[in-house]
Amino acid sequence: MAQADLLLIHARLFTMEGPGVGYVADGAVAVQGSRIAAVGTSDALQREYAQAERMDCQGDIVLPGLIDAHMHTGIALLRGTAQDMDHWMQLGIWPFRRHVTDEMAVAGSLVNIIEAMQAGTTTFGDYNSNMAQLMPHYERLGARARVAEMIHSLPPQQGSVPPGELYPLDDTVGEALLQRNIALYEDWHDAGGGRFSVMFGPQGPDLLGGELLQDVFAEARRRQAMVHMHVAQGDREILQMELRHGQRSPAYLDAMGLLGPDLLAVHLTEATDQEVQLLAKRGAAMVYCPGSIGIIDGLVPPAAEFMQQGGRAALGSDQLPGNNCANMWNEMKLAALFNKIKYRDPKVLPAWKALRMATVEGAAAIGLGDQVGSLKPGKYADMIRVDAKAPTLNPILDTAPRNIVPNLVYSLRGHEVHWMMVHGAVVMAERQLLNVDAAAAVAAAQQWAEKMASKARQAGDLDASPLTKWTEQGLL
Amino acid sequence: MAQADLLLIHARLFTMEGPGVGYVADGAVAVQGSRIAAVGTSDALQREYAQAERMDCQGDIVLPGLIDAHMHTGIALLRGTAQDMDHWMQLGIWPFRRHVTDEMAVAGSLVNIIEAMQAGTTTFGDYNSNMAQLMPHYERLGARARVAEMIHSLPPQQGSVPPGELYPLDDTVGEALLQRNIALYEDWHDAGGGRFSVMFGPQGPDLLGGELLQDVFAEARRRQAMVHMHVAQGDREILQMELRHGQRSPAYLDAMGLLGPDLLAVHLTEATDQEVQLLAKRGAAMVYCPGSIGIIDGLVPPAAEFMQQGGRAALGSDQLPGNNCANMWNEMKLAALFNKIKYRDPKVLPAWKALRMATVEGAAAIGLGDQVGSLKPGKYADMIRVDAKAPTLNPILDTAPRNIVPNLVYSLRGHEVHWMMVHGAVVMAERQLLNVDAAAAVAAAQQWAEKMASKARQAGDLDASPLTKWTEQGLL
Repeated sequence: MAQADLLLIHARLFTMEGPGVGYVADGAVAVQGSRIAAVGTSDALQREYAQAERMDCQGDIVLPGLIDAHMHTGIALLRGTAQDMDHWMQLGIWPFRRHVTDEMAVAGSLVNIIEAMQAGTTTFGDYNSNMAQLMPHYERLGARARVAEMIHSLPPQQGSVPPGELYPLDDTVGEALLQRNIALYEDWHDAGGGRFSVMFGPQGPDLLGGELLQDVFAEARRRQAMVHMHVAQGDREILQMELRHGQRSPAYLDAMGLLGPDLLAVHLTEATDQEVQLLAKRGAAMVYCPGSIGIIDGLVPPAAEFMQQGGRAALGSDQLPGNNCANMWNEMKLAALFNKIKYRDPKVLPAWKALRMATVEGAAAIGLGDQVGSLKPGKYADMIRVDAKAPTLNPILDTAPRNIVPNLVYSLRGHEVHWMMVHGAVVMAERQLLNVDAAAAVAAAQQWAEKMASKARQAGDLDASPLTKWTEQGLL
Repeated sequence: MAQADLLLIHARLFTMEGPGVGYVADGAVAVQGSRIAAVGTSDALQREYAQAERMDCQGDIVLPGLIDAHMHTGIALLRGTAQDMDHWMQLGIWPFRRHVTDEMAVAGSLVNIIEAMQAGTTTFGDYNSNMAQLMPHYERLGARARVAEMIHSLPPQQGSVPPGELYPLDDTVGEALLQRNIALYEDWHDAGGGRFSVMFGPQGPDLLGGELLQDVFAEARRRQAMVHMHVAQGDREILQMELRHGQRSPAYLDAMGLLGPDLLAVHLTEATDQEVQLLAKRGAAMVYCPGSIGIIDGLVPPAAEFMQQGGRAALGSDQLPGNNCANMWNEMKLAALFNKIKYRDPKVLPAWKALRMATVEGAAAIGLGDQVGSLKPGKYADMIRVDAKAPTLNPILDTAPRNIVPNLVYSLRGHEVHWMMVHGAVVMAERQLLNVDAAAAVAAAQQWAEKMASKARQAGDLDASPLTKWTEQGLL
């Protein structure tokens, strides 16, 4: 008789193994320690693990925990301040920038993380400039985090830079952030029994000098760590690259030998077909952030094309100033719909492919393919339960034509996720996160946000935001 | 001292009056009977209505109830069976069509209506071929309904029709449905103290004969009722029109004198710029269903263009086989994002405009502009409360730049709506609908769906659905 700590039974199980979604009717998962011991039918596993404690899923849908491959939770306090405008970074975000302390940033991150967990995210690809302060919170919350320090050379007291002008860069700033990334790696890589891992995070080829960028990659490669970086993330970046280096980002990076399987390239919004081919050929992976890029740019990055070229692509919620939410169901839905619209073809990026991007393929793209993303013996036990009795998913057709995956991707709101396990530990039950007081986190973030806004307002920095004008006009 | 049954106080109030969103900080609404008696600040209304029972909204966001202008709740049992494919109607929906009884349809409608109410919809533009059976449920649930009988001439035992072939039409079928629409009008128009109203509902210019279509309009005009009809809803319709009548739908309708202010034209997916101009010029109103048309066609109908021409446009969730949800926050978000993507411009269709489409402008488009859609003395008291402490909306910046509307439109999932009043009566409190057992409705629909699918499967009708193949391939 095999041993397990917990046996989930009577689930509608989507293992995400194989070429599709790996459905198991009346499925079961055995968990032992932090890992999945077995996956099969309830009948088979109840016989094999007769002694294990059981959780009857009562027909609920059980899936691997969702992977949010790219987030900047550190600017969550600015939720909803940078959309419906041009130059969102310069006009929306940067007016607040010098008024956000690390303490404020952490308070915002907590709301962002809570929101995401409540919709099923178990793995966080977080990428800020204060990760050391944030990591203890990930540890406490029980989520999985694969993080990077965001390394840029923007002078700290710099306010807004007018669109079209070259940013001032000071690589002593970036060098200090690289040292922080190294320290983050030393402290947290492979920590928490494997729940945490660290990448290196240059913010983008336009936001630090070339030598420093080489140094960052060298430090990453010395440790066999991946590099998490925005690449061709918008016309803003391309303009900066052309002004400063006379080259577009992909050519610039390729000339330096920085396009390879250790690169997680985020957005690629402005990448041409040739550039997409180049990145896929070099073995780089991609993160597609549909909601964020849809809102802030009105664009659909070439994720479908990248996958067509054999590239691995994950999904990300990016950031709250202009997304404005952290909900992987939203990202799956928008990935599918935006690509249908881009190609005027309802067959493009079907629901099951979107679900794979948020699970098994997302895990592979961020270098965790052997650890999470599917329900497979030996992988870590990261799982969510979705209420199969939620009106948004009903009725359910279990046999062909099975409608569960389309309704997960196109109808789920997020709150139907009511239970979550990460690394073998239950972190959410009956919709409540067990390791954090969510209401207190919201209240704390609110206080910090008011302080931040008050300071920025007093400094006159908010006059530049179009939202200030719209508020005065009664439009907000 | 003025009289009121209930005084809502301490709300972040969006009245939707004026050109924008009509924000009132620390706002209050006085309700008397079925109508709004007064709107103002908490201070002012507490003095004026000192005796009224009070509800302290504790800073929650209070808005007019949302208007879902176009729904076919009668096919809700088919949720998730018609997407990611070409010819969704022929290959996705019609295989089930002859196996759905009126009783089954009503059971599906209930889940659809419950789901929509749980996200804040108070007014239902429902449009099916069994409205007489459904209306008592709207009466019981407490929602507002502005309905039409869906009049078409498709023979009842007709299964699927191969794409590209002319449908068989039998106007004796349509004539009987017109009589049903007349009876519906007699029984329900202006019933429920004004909570219900009836339009006439030819399904589309391609789905009934020309003379019958004229008769439908004549019956509507005799009663000063509006006509709710799909127009240019897809290439399928245009093909049928060209094959049968040698004309595209707008020209055909205009030649018959049927384009006017009494027409609520749904979709206009295939309408050219000239056709959009023509409809706007004739004073017709439009319903835009972003999610549904995005999923089933991969297209963005010309709603922004129609509004640019001065036309009034509402939003609709359409139907569940291929949307796959009934959630007006989803429709607002998709309306904004799809149009940004269509024009590659993040400034197109900002959040406040999307919110107006789902409230005050939607109400005007469907002919209820003097009754609902904004919080204004004399209008019916249809309101929702949104939990201002939900992580998805936080932090909140109350002063400029105010971020509430962008976060409602771009981040709200739906379940943050926790209280609803329709026609002066509370129909939802603490997220529970008060007049229906939601769990029992879901269970009943599930039973009917299984019967429906079983019959359709036995008849071999489901072999045509691409989802059947994908299920067998492990993709669903």
